[in-house]
Amino acid sequence: MPAVIPEDSVGLVTPRKIHFDQPLALSCGRSLERWDLMVETYGELNADASNAVLICHALSGHHHAAGYHDMDERKPGWWDSAIGPGKTIDTNRFFVVSLNNLGGCHGSTGPNSLNPDTGKPYGPDFPIMTVLDWVNSQARLADRLGITQWAAVVGGSLGGMQALQWSISYPERLRHCVVIASAAKLSAQNIAFNEVARQAISKDPEFHNGHYYEEGVVPRTGLMLARMVGHITYLSDDGMREKFGRELKDGKLSFDFNPQFEVESYLQYQGERFSSSFDANTYLLMTKALDYFDPAGEQGDNLAAALAPARCNYLVVSFTTDWRFSPERSRELVDGLIAAGKPVSYAEIDAPQGHDAFLIPIPRYMEVFGGYMNRIANSLTPAEGELNAR
Amino acid sequence: MPAVIPEDSVGLVTPRKIHFDQPLALSCGRSLERWDLMVETYGELNADASNAVLICHALSGHHHAAGYHDMDERKPGWWDSAIGPGKTIDTNRFFVVSLNNLGGCHGSTGPNSLNPDTGKPYGPDFPIMTVLDWVNSQARLADRLGITQWAAVVGGSLGGMQALQWSISYPERLRHCVVIASAAKLSAQNIAFNEVARQAISKDPEFHNGHYYEEGVVPRTGLMLARMVGHITYLSDDGMREKFGRELKDGKLSFDFNPQFEVESYLQYQGERFSSSFDANTYLLMTKALDYFDPAGEQGDNLAAALAPARCNYLVVSFTTDWRFSPERSRELVDGLIAAGKPVSYAEIDAPQGHDAFLIPIPRYMEVFGGYMNRIANSLTPAEGELNAR
Repeated sequence: MPAVIPEDSVGLVTPRKIHFDQPLALSCGRSLERWDLMVETYGELNADASNAVLICHALSGHHHAAGYHDMDERKPGWWDSAIGPGKTIDTNRFFVVSLNNLGGCHGSTGPNSLNPDTGKPYGPDFPIMTVLDWVNSQARLADRLGITQWAAVVGGSLGGMQALQWSISYPERLRHCVVIASAAKLSAQNIAFNEVARQAISKDPEFHNGHYYEEGVVPRTGLMLARMVGHITYLSDDGMREKFGRELKDGKLSFDFNPQFEVESYLQYQGERFSSSFDANTYLLMTKALDYFDPAGEQGDNLAAALAPARCNYLVVSFTTDWRFSPERSRELVDGLIAAGKPVSYAEIDAPQGHDAFLIPIPRYMEVFGGYMNRIANSLTPAEGELNAR
Repeated sequence: MPAVIPEDSVGLVTPRKIHFDQPLALSCGRSLERWDLMVETYGELNADASNAVLICHALSGHHHAAGYHDMDERKPGWWDSAIGPGKTIDTNRFFVVSLNNLGGCHGSTGPNSLNPDTGKPYGPDFPIMTVLDWVNSQARLADRLGITQWAAVVGGSLGGMQALQWSISYPERLRHCVVIASAAKLSAQNIAFNEVARQAISKDPEFHNGHYYEEGVVPRTGLMLARMVGHITYLSDDGMREKFGRELKDGKLSFDFNPQFEVESYLQYQGERFSSSFDANTYLLMTKALDYFDPAGEQGDNLAAALAPARCNYLVVSFTTDWRFSPERSRELVDGLIAAGKPVSYAEIDAPQGHDAFLIPIPRYMEVFGGYMNRIANSLTPAEGELNAR
């Protein structure tokens, strides 16, 4: 909890739930008749609505990307290091929109919401969402907010996939696409890790085929295991070595099965904390969206063909020790963009933190990303306040 | 099952259980009063007992390394590709000894054996074993077989750790040490993966704190998850891409949570098969032995100091895409050996199969390994049969 709100923070923010009552047709063939999105915004939309930036979240993310909900909040939003006045995504210049995706568990309609048809939680009957479905729902949100065209759509990991999909599905509706630590599709290894997580959750006796809400229980062990596996893959081998080495919790081996190395305790703690704050059905759904994303798949694996409709500029960023979304995957995307004749800047950032690096304000990363965002801001019609200040 | 036994096979083999009734003092401070080792041997011990090779097994291995137990056996022993007449470890020239380690679940005394003190299975009361304990038990086995000095001690992965420990603990008792796809200690990432496996097993409701034998159940889900995670880490990202790509089982996405990609079905199958054939307490114990191994730890992290007592020659082999026991770990070991002034040959084999490569007869690997073994064989006193044949 902050004693005082830092000066470069967006400060206290209040999320709002926006209701949509026009049906949203989904990739699976079903549709959502009525749905809510939980949204936060930072900064002010300028007069011609040209300064809006959409933040797309990753697997376990949500709408609360920056600032504090109240003075008791332990930590600010998940990307507070990058979003705020004077920061990389400068809220003095941009109007930043952040949402919880459909299927999420932080206020937007998802498996733990009441199904209006039954009066019970959707649970496993909630439709499987795809990245395209999310982008379609975000386009409705843009309509509602009066944003015809985003200055930029920005995302890391699964969020980067959404940014990429925006550029393909709504080419007229964004000028810049920022894809960080992401990929044009998952590898078999990535799908395999996701399947371990899904098996851990769905085989947990407390899962009850996804109807655990009615039973008043939570598949905690499954969620914990899923998070532990995930966490290992978000860190690099070197990063873990630096952070934990082979340090023993109590200084010596105890020859029993209790966690003895620091890394074991850390993972268990992270897993347990996550299992009491995240919804299992949402976790399943998010991993499926990751697995299914493959825009080139519909074009005979021709990524350049899939990217052909795009009209925006791209920034692609990867991190050297990220092995879950390796630089190789980003280079594939860059190659596809170049083959499609799209303008793209690419930066491979030297960083020991693995996939997690995309959330960390590494100087070289912030410099590249901030420089790109700054050029976008400089091309905007100045906001009235800024004009007056000149 | 073989229609006929291949000519380069050791043929039909019969394991034998060898009983020991002298107590074995263990690293944990306890001791095993009476214990059995399940053993197979291939080839003939020569007159001066100079041609014996010890095979040390990895996490899920056992004594059955080569040949067939009967004509109905689906597959030969786990390292049949390397052990046999005319093969890399040539049973026409070497007397090969392979055992199931203590704590195992294939006939040697382990958690599923009856505790003579209680008349019930040991279960979780079976002492935690270390690599040193295994090596001490293997030294007793050597005594029993009349082997004063091994021509070579050979092992991959956890087996390589045992070979390394032999060279430190019994320097006079081996002339060559072959350490394949191994490490002088696990990394934090490796410990973390092991901890996920342990949590999956021990949090399975059918685990009953390790007393599942009495309950007539098996923690199948935990074992399945442990094996799935393990399996992913034994393959390389590239290897998985080659083997599975993003192939769909039924040719198209079905928008449900059933396994849809080939890689998902494969992992589930492997996990389920393993869960019906391996003992959960043994799995826990084997992963702890891996985590605890760190001979340099007792020497202030000075690996060269730990290796100082050794008097044998070394062959160290690693595989380019092995990220569970990466070439970097092997190079650390080689650096330690060089710093300690020990004779060492090192080969880094270009192979796409990840950690699993050590079990695969990759031509360049077999050439290096076979060349090394051949030089050992050439230095032996010829066996009587060979003399007669000349």
